[in-house]
Amino acid sequence: MDVFDKLTLHIPDTDKPRIVIIGGGFAGIEISKKLKNLPVQLVLLDRHNYYTFIPLLYQVATAGLEPDSVAWPLRKLMEDFPDSYFRMAKVNRIAPEEKKIYTAVGALHYDYLIIASGSRTNYFGMEDKFKLSFPLKRVPQALDLRSHILQNFEKVVMTQDEEEKNKLLTFCIVGGGPTGVEVAGALGELKQHVLPKDYPEIDFAFMRIVLIEGTGRLLNGMSEKSGKRALQYLKDFGVDVRLNTMMDSYNGQEIFLKGGEKIQSQTLVWAAGVQGNVIDGFSEDKIIKGRIAVDAYNRVAGYEDIFAVGDVAVMRTEHFPNGHPMLAPVAIQQGKHLAKNFKNLLEKAPLKPFKYFDKGYMATIGRKRAVVDLPKRGSFGGFFAWLIWMVIHLFFLIGFRNKLIVLFNWAYNYFTYDRGIRLIIRTFINEEKNKKKE
Amino acid sequence: MDVFDKLTLHIPDTDKPRIVIIGGGFAGIEISKKLKNLPVQLVLLDRHNYYTFIPLLYQVATAGLEPDSVAWPLRKLMEDFPDSYFRMAKVNRIAPEEKKIYTAVGALHYDYLIIASGSRTNYFGMEDKFKLSFPLKRVPQALDLRSHILQNFEKVVMTQDEEEKNKLLTFCIVGGGPTGVEVAGALGELKQHVLPKDYPEIDFAFMRIVLIEGTGRLLNGMSEKSGKRALQYLKDFGVDVRLNTMMDSYNGQEIFLKGGEKIQSQTLVWAAGVQGNVIDGFSEDKIIKGRIAVDAYNRVAGYEDIFAVGDVAVMRTEHFPNGHPMLAPVAIQQGKHLAKNFKNLLEKAPLKPFKYFDKGYMATIGRKRAVVDLPKRGSFGGFFAWLIWMVIHLFFLIGFRNKLIVLFNWAYNYFTYDRGIRLIIRTFINEEKNKKKE
Repeated sequence: MDVFDKLTLHIPDTDKPRIVIIGGGFAGIEISKKLKNLPVQLVLLDRHNYYTFIPLLYQVATAGLEPDSVAWPLRKLMEDFPDSYFRMAKVNRIAPEEKKIYTAVGALHYDYLIIASGSRTNYFGMEDKFKLSFPLKRVPQALDLRSHILQNFEKVVMTQDEEEKNKLLTFCIVGGGPTGVEVAGALGELKQHVLPKDYPEIDFAFMRIVLIEGTGRLLNGMSEKSGKRALQYLKDFGVDVRLNTMMDSYNGQEIFLKGGEKIQSQTLVWAAGVQGNVIDGFSEDKIIKGRIAVDAYNRVAGYEDIFAVGDVAVMRTEHFPNGHPMLAPVAIQQGKHLAKNFKNLLEKAPLKPFKYFDKGYMATIGRKRAVVDLPKRGSFGGFFAWLIWMVIHLFFLIGFRNKLIVLFNWAYNYFTYDRGIRLIIRTFINEEKNKKKE
Repeated sequence: MDVFDKLTLHIPDTDKPRIVIIGGGFAGIEISKKLKNLPVQLVLLDRHNYYTFIPLLYQVATAGLEPDSVAWPLRKLMEDFPDSYFRMAKVNRIAPEEKKIYTAVGALHYDYLIIASGSRTNYFGMEDKFKLSFPLKRVPQALDLRSHILQNFEKVVMTQDEEEKNKLLTFCIVGGGPTGVEVAGALGELKQHVLPKDYPEIDFAFMRIVLIEGTGRLLNGMSEKSGKRALQYLKDFGVDVRLNTMMDSYNGQEIFLKGGEKIQSQTLVWAAGVQGNVIDGFSEDKIIKGRIAVDAYNRVAGYEDIFAVGDVAVMRTEHFPNGHPMLAPVAIQQGKHLAKNFKNLLEKAPLKPFKYFDKGYMATIGRKRAVVDLPKRGSFGGFFAWLIWMVIHLFFLIGFRNKLIVLFNWAYNYFTYDRGIRLIIRTFINEEKNKKKE
């Protein structure tokens, strides 16, 4: 079918139990790191050869960071793990009855399987109606969006048609969660501080940023207070926030809202939601709202040897009757916990149930502003929240090189009111977009 | 025809003479910077929105630098130039009799035209036979090559077929000039220091780097001594240098050499040469060996108002009967000189002829080694030459941010024997390559 025609997975057999991990995201890499000293063979599969720090992807899309600084080569992670194998391969199907996974390059037997395949963009069944929108879950998507945004401004200076100009200068984002709010804030900052220097010919009063949210508030996962604060910050940036607004379709030129209104825009960022990146092979009763049901040990119900962690897993607890939020801290904690449980498992000791330690939630809204919710200590916003947001993100970013380059870029962006990274690497994005779609 | 359908160049008319510059490369940006204080209107056209520091492109292709650090937004360059306009547009044709240029988005009148369109890959009429090779003149090409190289290793670990493995592990470069030598050296370094850590499953003794050169020596533009030194350095890295070797064709799997021999390889980097990026519109007598003939003032013969500078121009002098070498220093000096002459031109003072100040030549060959030719002072190599190479390249790199990030990456690469930037961003490159071809 493709270049992988002649390829096979080819993992040598050993006496040690083979643990196969699907996905090198937050959960997958935590487990990989922690299993190092156990007597196991580890196979990590991912369709990319790098891990993506998704919380900063929006800064790649808005010209604040280079893609290489928010990603990390997965092979580097496994360098000092004696019996470990990385394969760049997409898993198509799990066959629990055979204890095998099937990929584009062949099948592989596992003794234990850990599904850490994360999440993917959720179009809520309307992918066809919104296929010209820009999702923001992967590095190439962020690069596409960056090129598209910058290319729009290049087109504006070459456009006389007022309606066309208006479409080019209107940037819509659907979804008032952290990603949507952060993209809107970053665009607000570009509008206020960065782009006017580059495009003296453009009157930026005509640049519109519209954030569309279906419910009555922003940041539904956070406190009421933080939602209101974020709304105020966005309004200060001139963002047009439309709450209680549902969308019908998008044709690349016009967004049709439910109720008849339409917004002329050549840019729609799809930040409306994610769903578990479930892999084929389980019966329907194992899937709850698009995520794989697991018990308190992250075991997929009914199997002793299959686990699911992070966004793809749903563990229903008293506190979280619908499962934990699909966020990095949950994935990290579940990954760490499962790695510890594996030690027990191999030693035939009893497993310990997972308990989420809530460290709080945060989102940033452009320059010098963020909102933070701390458990028990309430919520706050402003400059201090923004500093905390930066420190925490730097801390969780993997790799000394990445931390330093991100820190330097942030300092540069802050002090110069500029963005160093403004290359349009892919022209004619619109035409190519459909081909590139997952 | 494309997204630029509804666009026009649209430059406001003024009383000041309009200078149109085609190309934001070394020559084009020097002129743009220097014309700032003259009473002119400046229009800079480039098909990209960034300037590319081509001498470091090979480090992008070999995972040493991120693309954003060897490029610079052209608009940033023009920020403090009062009456200047940048347009991201490709010029298709020059019409000297109308004093107009024609682009995909319309025509534009000029009072003075400066052609600084640089050079493009020269296939010596065999583009069809080598369309599956990788050129290395533009940022997207460097990214393609990087992804291809890294993807090859991902495939090797999934391959059992020995012939296929051999093809994947053989990297050929055609052209023994600076680019070819630098790519071969950088691959040698990856082989020796970087990749074995990532791919413990691969026996790197089987990784072959083959440098193919048609003449009897390397670095033809430099001294005999430097050519020999470069050859020795490459041999120390285990590079198989084939001098006096001509190529016949390449089918993506096998390179057919003249004489019947063939080399099995899935990677052929085309560094065999460049040609002037000549734009249609001149009669044949104005073109000499694919470059536009200019007089000592960089004026295109027969025109008072058209100039050509840098790689695209050929100025035949006593010292350089075939024109100056197609190198950055020539472009920079011609650009600066022409900008000064424009002052004279506007003041109706006599123009001064261009004289090339030869500062020497250099090339680097992997870690800690380079060759330098200084005029009158002879040539030298080794560690000190490598340091000089780095200082000079940092000096000429545009922008504080870029300098610092490149310096940091070099230090990181040097001290860790590692490369931070190893993302395969475009999978299935081979399939997509043909579509993306210029």
